[in-house]
Amino acid sequence: MKLIEKLDMKDSQTISFHHHLREGDRVMSMVLKALHDAGLRDLTLCSTSIMNCHDFLVDYIKDGMISSLETSGLRGGLGCFISDGGMDNPVVIRSHGSRARAVSDGERGVDVAFLAVSKADELGNATGMIGQNAFGSLGYGIWEARNAKKTVVVTDDLSSKVLDHISISQSDTDAILVIHEIGKSEKINSGALRIKSDPLTMRIAENSAQFLMHCGIDLNDKAIQMGSGGISLQTMNNLTSHLDEKNIRFKFAVGGITNNLIQLLEAGFVEALMDVQSFDPACAKSLRYNRNHHEVDVNTYSNPLNPSNLVNSLDIAILSALEIDLDWNVNVITGSDGRFRGAVGGHQDVAEGSNLTIVVAPLIRGRIPVLTDKVNTLVTKGKEVDAFICEYGIAVKEDHESILRSLNDSGIKTLQLREMYNKTVKYVGIPTKPEYSDKTVAIVQDRYGNTLTEIKQLAR
Amino acid sequence: MKLIEKLDMKDSQTISFHHHLREGDRVMSMVLKALHDAGLRDLTLCSTSIMNCHDFLVDYIKDGMISSLETSGLRGGLGCFISDGGMDNPVVIRSHGSRARAVSDGERGVDVAFLAVSKADELGNATGMIGQNAFGSLGYGIWEARNAKKTVVVTDDLSSKVLDHISISQSDTDAILVIHEIGKSEKINSGALRIKSDPLTMRIAENSAQFLMHCGIDLNDKAIQMGSGGISLQTMNNLTSHLDEKNIRFKFAVGGITNNLIQLLEAGFVEALMDVQSFDPACAKSLRYNRNHHEVDVNTYSNPLNPSNLVNSLDIAILSALEIDLDWNVNVITGSDGRFRGAVGGHQDVAEGSNLTIVVAPLIRGRIPVLTDKVNTLVTKGKEVDAFICEYGIAVKEDHESILRSLNDSGIKTLQLREMYNKTVKYVGIPTKPEYSDKTVAIVQDRYGNTLTEIKQLAR
Repeated sequence: MKLIEKLDMKDSQTISFHHHLREGDRVMSMVLKALHDAGLRDLTLCSTSIMNCHDFLVDYIKDGMISSLETSGLRGGLGCFISDGGMDNPVVIRSHGSRARAVSDGERGVDVAFLAVSKADELGNATGMIGQNAFGSLGYGIWEARNAKKTVVVTDDLSSKVLDHISISQSDTDAILVIHEIGKSEKINSGALRIKSDPLTMRIAENSAQFLMHCGIDLNDKAIQMGSGGISLQTMNNLTSHLDEKNIRFKFAVGGITNNLIQLLEAGFVEALMDVQSFDPACAKSLRYNRNHHEVDVNTYSNPLNPSNLVNSLDIAILSALEIDLDWNVNVITGSDGRFRGAVGGHQDVAEGSNLTIVVAPLIRGRIPVLTDKVNTLVTKGKEVDAFICEYGIAVKEDHESILRSLNDSGIKTLQLREMYNKTVKYVGIPTKPEYSDKTVAIVQDRYGNTLTEIKQLAR
Repeated sequence: MKLIEKLDMKDSQTISFHHHLREGDRVMSMVLKALHDAGLRDLTLCSTSIMNCHDFLVDYIKDGMISSLETSGLRGGLGCFISDGGMDNPVVIRSHGSRARAVSDGERGVDVAFLAVSKADELGNATGMIGQNAFGSLGYGIWEARNAKKTVVVTDDLSSKVLDHISISQSDTDAILVIHEIGKSEKINSGALRIKSDPLTMRIAENSAQFLMHCGIDLNDKAIQMGSGGISLQTMNNLTSHLDEKNIRFKFAVGGITNNLIQLLEAGFVEALMDVQSFDPACAKSLRYNRNHHEVDVNTYSNPLNPSNLVNSLDIAILSALEIDLDWNVNVITGSDGRFRGAVGGHQDVAEGSNLTIVVAPLIRGRIPVLTDKVNTLVTKGKEVDAFICEYGIAVKEDHESILRSLNDSGIKTLQLREMYNKTVKYVGIPTKPEYSDKTVAIVQDRYGNTLTEIKQLAR
């Protein structure tokens, strides 16, 4: 409470958080409770993402403490609440790169950033790599601290000695808030981020590995983003013997970093990891002790106004999808029922930056087609996508003649998107589209701050 | 030349350099020759400091390529040239902290920064810690890169692999210039920075150590800046057995870092080094491998507009002087003859930030009194200085009653500044003051950008 006074917090300000602790975060709930007790109203909450553990936001929206939300993702109970029109102001949905741009180009000023850190020192230096709840990279936090008007680092481990690793500089810190527990770092690799070995995943991963091995692109010395989904992880597993045999070493891997990628780094298949967000608590130790595992801030990762960003250097990227359509457009934010169940994350950024962008997903997911005639929500434009790989095979855009030729020469048959689509219709029919009312409940921006898609309230 | 076009360089722009390579720098001469060949005119050269090896600037000033200079130091042939009125526009002299402020608060926009780095990678990441000319901290360079409109990293060692230590981020780099040799890093600890053991130095250092041991301040857990001059180094040597005996560990040491401080870190007498500028090539290895030796940018070191800067946390600082006067005012930029022969460096910043500021210098230096009735050039105001220690003893400001009492109780006699001054008069008389004409040749700013002192042209 004293801190709130010291920060001179007022109604209608913008507060922000990062989601490095993912489903293990406790900082947002703790801070919002204090702001609620202080009677603040009409706040804009701007988080790098919002997870299931943040469903409590519904109550704060209902009672008027939070009047606007800005995030890269929406899901769970809050997602349903928004889909059903529970909020007056449309949620602003940005990719990580677009958000990095918005907080630095004036579009989204942040009054106070509350940033979870796993250890801080009394000078105000902070890191996510040390401490009982070490979570790894502070890639979002570093940039947030540099841009917010005021930055509060929130920790459960305050050191009187100068930290032996500094991620956020004391220069970017205005206050230190010590709490009992910032969360549970072991929860950061829950859910979607665990490696899967079901037959569907294995099939798609096998097709993806075949594509990479036979697409005619020399993989050596390439920059990659492999994604953190189960399919990506298995794709890499399928590739390792090929990498070993051909003596292939990737120049660097970027994005959310998994334990799988740490193993590839240690085995010498990847020369450097550029870690904007750690998807495994094991990253903390690797970042600290492996000199080729780098913490990179989100501006360096993907701010579209930063010409030196890492996604612009990507050669090959594997991305997931909730839906992809016949024009190669991708949706990663709403399900086929129109409800929020995902996040833009770095999707738009990577797709635009990478030379070759491959979308991997099941053609049909639990009797619901992923490949449709038209995505419910346009997130990433079809022109940024080069290939789609599912359990039935590989589709490559027609203008990639040399890739198509290489695959063909290797005996790999490719399909047209339309052929794949016909399969979905044959197997599960054409599903009913969700019905919408007129009210806009969310706006998906493109990387540059333009409105790409208005998402409407679901009709009852 | 192609780079100059690519950078869209024009007459009257401001270019900048850092002086991490000190007397070993070759980047400034190489870059200026290229700009000269390109026919550029009327440039403002804004360097973190200017060394003797930069005397060639006289020619570029004479022929009109450089019309304004901004620096923390002036010496050698260029210093004489300026003192004699060789330049139309007054040189702007700022402390490191004031410069950090000026390049970020709009007072001094930098169009292109040319920053020597000992290794860079193709993404644009750079460091001073690796490579054949590794020089250590890039403390000035990091902040410069973040603030300059365009940043060129200049290196003699370009890596195709991602660097395994990143000081300047690719996000802050606009171009990479590869040259044959950035300089000679072994020259960074030449001259004033070497440890001395002449009787005069030893005597002052002994007095300084006695002061620290008996001033009544518990040295344990204190933040210090000890300075890089010979006296400071010997003071520390004299202290170590006391530190050992009393189990004293300094919290951190800040500023220019010497090999001496590295040894204190390794011996456990200092818990952390905060290195804005390395005064020994050995710092490169220490910065890289010792987790408690930190590279800090100059904004974090001493920007007065950054409330979290390190000088604000200082408990005790030892600073040098070319002159000190009866009002405790200090001059570190001109000699008794009025000619430029020094640098403000961090003097103003540290004196203002530190709780206790001790000036150490010989009372008489080569028959010239250091303690005078009035300094030739006011650089650091007397109100920021607490004690003066010379070969004849210790003077402490009267309001430090407890310090005076502690020293007295320990049998250490203190002197009044006036008593010391009378000694100088007795031994060497009152020297003639330099005579000046009306023309202002340089302006010494205070930390906040106000004019503190106008330095006039020397009369013939």
